[in-house]
Amino acid sequence: MKIYSFWRSLATYRVRIALNLKGIVPEKVIEVNLMKGQQREAEFRAVNPMMAIPALVDGDGPVMIESLAIIEYLDETHPSPPLLPKDPRGRARVRGLAQLVAADSHPLIVPRVREYLEHQLKHDQQTVTAWCRHWHTQALTGLETHLKGKETGKFAHGDQVTLADICIASQAAGAKFFNVDTAPFPNFVRITDEVAKIDAFARAHPLKQPGAPATV
Amino acid sequence: MKIYSFWRSLATYRVRIALNLKGIVPEKVIEVNLMKGQQREAEFRAVNPMMAIPALVDGDGPVMIESLAIIEYLDETHPSPPLLPKDPRGRARVRGLAQLVAADSHPLIVPRVREYLEHQLKHDQQTVTAWCRHWHTQALTGLETHLKGKETGKFAHGDQVTLADICIASQAAGAKFFNVDTAPFPNFVRITDEVAKIDAFARAHPLKQPGAPATV
Repeated sequence: MKIYSFWRSLATYRVRIALNLKGIVPEKVIEVNLMKGQQREAEFRAVNPMMAIPALVDGDGPVMIESLAIIEYLDETHPSPPLLPKDPRGRARVRGLAQLVAADSHPLIVPRVREYLEHQLKHDQQTVTAWCRHWHTQALTGLETHLKGKETGKFAHGDQVTLADICIASQAAGAKFFNVDTAPFPNFVRITDEVAKIDAFARAHPLKQPGAPATV
Repeated sequence: MKIYSFWRSLATYRVRIALNLKGIVPEKVIEVNLMKGQQREAEFRAVNPMMAIPALVDGDGPVMIESLAIIEYLDETHPSPPLLPKDPRGRARVRGLAQLVAADSHPLIVPRVREYLEHQLKHDQQTVTAWCRHWHTQALTGLETHLKGKETGKFAHGDQVTLADICIASQAAGAKFFNVDTAPFPNFVRITDEVAKIDAFARAHPLKQPGAPATV
């Protein structure tokens, strides 16, 4: 398996957690430096025309894109430990929480969007940061309301780690990057603290990857 | 089953197509008028704190959110016809294409984002429309490259309708709303023409819903 990755990419962080939980070690980790714009170079555009990471190749198979699609693939091909509950309602809740992060929130703060705000719309850094914090806080507000529900246990859905916790961890790392106040969201904070204790999450953290700074 | 819906919502359009394909008729369709801001009213915030539609309730179960999570629930509980291929690689491709639309593109052009650009960042209508067209064109470029692949058949993945086609249909309706030129994307156009012939897609179209105008 080979994975296209960058330390700061929150979507790649999600896939790294899943790989670690499944005990899969990719033979190759190919860096796509988002800060240098390598995702826009012809070489990577041939891999993923959306110019986004992660991208994963398993064996000689075609490239797979989109973090949640990749994680479901890993879950289907390496079922232990499962990352989704068994019952359809539980699966819908976990996928819903995951997509609240990965579809409703994260796409709004990725490099290409920040660059459009800065270069096309000529906004200063402060305005771009306020934009990122706004969408973060919206997602955290939504997540917190869901996490108050009775389906929440030690983790976001019961007492087993699921895809929802993986996405919550990525949301927490993003909140740190943009200095978002998470104090008003105690259930969110409790779960992020809980998953941080798990080695598969800790090792996958952006700041533990090659090329990452000591702090952000 | 009851669904929270609005004629113009592209994410709800996706769920309507899936319901039609599965032959499910919700007992109740509750309008949440996005143009009047009803998604922000307390009544709907209690349903979905993210203030987004669709939301679906099956029986007395909790509210389900996020279009792709809802469609996977419908697919698991009403397996015929299946909306995902059987093989994990095929499923990853279909989910990847679906998320390219529903996670990488659509979230950037929803009402709350357009409103932020307009009200917080004080951009005029022309700038907001250019923003919407930019992200549309990026997604269409990505989709078209994927749809040139050998896995594409009559539909986005082989000759059976999948979740990817549902998302392509929603992307096509969005392209119409924002007057995006789709001519440079012939595979995309061919598939949107193909699915438009299917009654389950045609009946679900935004412009066929109560409250919709005759054209956009």
